[in-house]
Amino acid sequence: MNVLVLNAGSSTLKFQLLRTDPDRMAANADERLARGQYERIGGETIYTVSTKDEATMRGTAALRDHRAVLEHLLAWLASDASSVPISSIAEIEAVGHRVTHGGERFRLSVRIDDEVLRSIEETIELAPLHNPNNLKGIQAARAALGPGIPQVAVFDTAFHHTLPDHAYLYALPYQWYRRHRVRRYGFHGTSYRYIAYRYRTKTGRTREHTKIIALHLGNGCSACAIDAGSSVDTSMGFTPLEGLVMGTRSGDLDPAILDHVGSKEGYSFPEIEGILNKQSGLLGVSGLTNDMRELLAEEAEHGDRRARLAIDLFAYRARKYIGAYLAAMNGADAVIFAGGIGENASVVRARICDGLQWMGIELDADRNAGMVGGKEGRIDREGARVEVWVIPTDEELLIARDTVRVVLGIEHPG
Amino acid sequence: MNVLVLNAGSSTLKFQLLRTDPDRMAANADERLARGQYERIGGETIYTVSTKDEATMRGTAALRDHRAVLEHLLAWLASDASSVPISSIAEIEAVGHRVTHGGERFRLSVRIDDEVLRSIEETIELAPLHNPNNLKGIQAARAALGPGIPQVAVFDTAFHHTLPDHAYLYALPYQWYRRHRVRRYGFHGTSYRYIAYRYRTKTGRTREHTKIIALHLGNGCSACAIDAGSSVDTSMGFTPLEGLVMGTRSGDLDPAILDHVGSKEGYSFPEIEGILNKQSGLLGVSGLTNDMRELLAEEAEHGDRRARLAIDLFAYRARKYIGAYLAAMNGADAVIFAGGIGENASVVRARICDGLQWMGIELDADRNAGMVGGKEGRIDREGARVEVWVIPTDEELLIARDTVRVVLGIEHPG
Repeated sequence: MNVLVLNAGSSTLKFQLLRTDPDRMAANADERLARGQYERIGGETIYTVSTKDEATMRGTAALRDHRAVLEHLLAWLASDASSVPISSIAEIEAVGHRVTHGGERFRLSVRIDDEVLRSIEETIELAPLHNPNNLKGIQAARAALGPGIPQVAVFDTAFHHTLPDHAYLYALPYQWYRRHRVRRYGFHGTSYRYIAYRYRTKTGRTREHTKIIALHLGNGCSACAIDAGSSVDTSMGFTPLEGLVMGTRSGDLDPAILDHVGSKEGYSFPEIEGILNKQSGLLGVSGLTNDMRELLAEEAEHGDRRARLAIDLFAYRARKYIGAYLAAMNGADAVIFAGGIGENASVVRARICDGLQWMGIELDADRNAGMVGGKEGRIDREGARVEVWVIPTDEELLIARDTVRVVLGIEHPG
Repeated sequence: MNVLVLNAGSSTLKFQLLRTDPDRMAANADERLARGQYERIGGETIYTVSTKDEATMRGTAALRDHRAVLEHLLAWLASDASSVPISSIAEIEAVGHRVTHGGERFRLSVRIDDEVLRSIEETIELAPLHNPNNLKGIQAARAALGPGIPQVAVFDTAFHHTLPDHAYLYALPYQWYRRHRVRRYGFHGTSYRYIAYRYRTKTGRTREHTKIIALHLGNGCSACAIDAGSSVDTSMGFTPLEGLVMGTRSGDLDPAILDHVGSKEGYSFPEIEGILNKQSGLLGVSGLTNDMRELLAEEAEHGDRRARLAIDLFAYRARKYIGAYLAAMNGADAVIFAGGIGENASVVRARICDGLQWMGIELDADRNAGMVGGKEGRIDREGARVEVWVIPTDEELLIARDTVRVVLGIEHPG
């Protein structure tokens, strides 16, 4: 089955075209036919699209909305120029969408119908920055491919529906949970599902007897405690703002800071929240950049104090979450790094794990240094009590597989 | 030296009268001559005062301010009725004040002069709920005892001045730290200093080679990681709101919740912060009470779901902090419980430590059950990797000793 996987942002569209079905899944023989992204939709749109045969399409075009982008993309995919083995748009058999927020309702991936669309719309107030864009992607696909093509929503929150109440509730007036749906939802769920599945596949461990602490460290960063295949705690909360230090997000802080700074600077709630989301984290501390690679370079080349501080804060807070989740699960079999930083910044992995020997976490310096650029494997020292892995995440693959399973009516793991 | 120790609240005054000096300190032979509290100052004030000989004074009186309260108290202390071995107010040789917030300036206890008073006043914006009351106590003591009696300020924040920058900085725009002094200060520092001192005294361990995780669980609750006698991390932050679940305070939460609930309910920053401080925590979750004893009774007698939830949340979050601080310090020699809940609620201690066996923390059920009502001792299972202790805290003793040391010009441990 040819599945188009879409991840729609406010003025961006990332996509992959995958070919998969139950047999290919079982054999781990899914094919990635094409991938790419469109940026600055609505203006002079920039696009980069490539196929597995290295055919690429790069350029700019005036594309007014997500629908125009999809039509542009589909025309190329179906053309001979693309070398993609489909000869018409009709061979795209399903669309899988990454949807940020599924609220408390969506615990599994679902086929999108009008009723599901309304539910996703109702969740906008919980994810005002993300869900409206995901809806744009859904509407564009429906318009470009016709209503007959099945579309499936795969939610970033769904994997965390197994959180126990003591992990998802905040110590706030209980009516805020009842009335305003204030609770920990968690995000990056599709990534964590993939990581947990992949770890079991590589090690032959059973779902039941596996405890994992996974760290998805990209521009957004979070940690997740996975026990017997289920998420039991995660660091992002009501929104993706809570938890680890991120590129531009603060992560954990004393909530009383908001009133103090708000009154000093005359900021409103939304202004403060904007700063916490967009001008904090690595960028805020360093005053320089949200890019970990640049910070590492700045620290190495000039010994920049605030670059060092930003990296130290980042590593220290991740280390504390590892400890917290070891406590939450009474131990773990493995710590797993994923995401752009987790998969590539061996120095950051080393700084996170430094000083965890007492807990049985120790890296092998050579293995760690070599495990970059998309490589997958173990990086712990021989004989350490807890395994440490790098597993490049693949959310698109999981979205494509879920899409096939939902369309075929096959039960899928939560 | 007879030292009056004062802890002034907005309409309350707690006090102890202690007799101590360097010889008594060395012999641990400090004497507690009297203790008590005044409530509802400004109205019909209720007081309960008792001495070590069980002489007590209880009653109500119309006392208009903290100065009137002190005069009422001093008259009784110097009278024959009290059985306190001082015959005139002049025998009170120094006053030690608990002061909540010392900002970044006060790293040790100091003798109060006009310049120090101004500095404490400047810190009011960092602790608007506490420091103004502490100042009332200082001014009342100066008025009642005369300017010749030395007064010493002992700060709740001072012990945490050793936090490394990666532990005291938030991942916020750096100028918020420079301009608005936004950082982790931490509180309960006097309690932690006492606990760390007491643990070393009981075990004969040296300051240098001791790592402790201390949990002060009272109406306010916090955790502290103490390495080689110095605080290296603590859960309260810019204010006492952050960290563990408390009687009425939320502790950690996603800061984006403030805008969401604020806009839903039309709350301002100060209103939301008021709710986070006064209607959250155990009270908010249970919808019942901020008193752990009542919650435990309600759960035991009626199986109340939300009482159970509140206790579970409380225990789970404390457990995660233990894990986080084991990670922060690369292990620990001991976990120590203190404060009203920590010293008395053996069931809560058991629930916090449940599931920490992997980390070498295991309680002995009998020892734990018996260690209540002011008892001090170990409660871990024979052979466990990490010691677990109950150490009833004694902030007043430390304040009295610091006061003597400051007055005599003896260096005191930070």
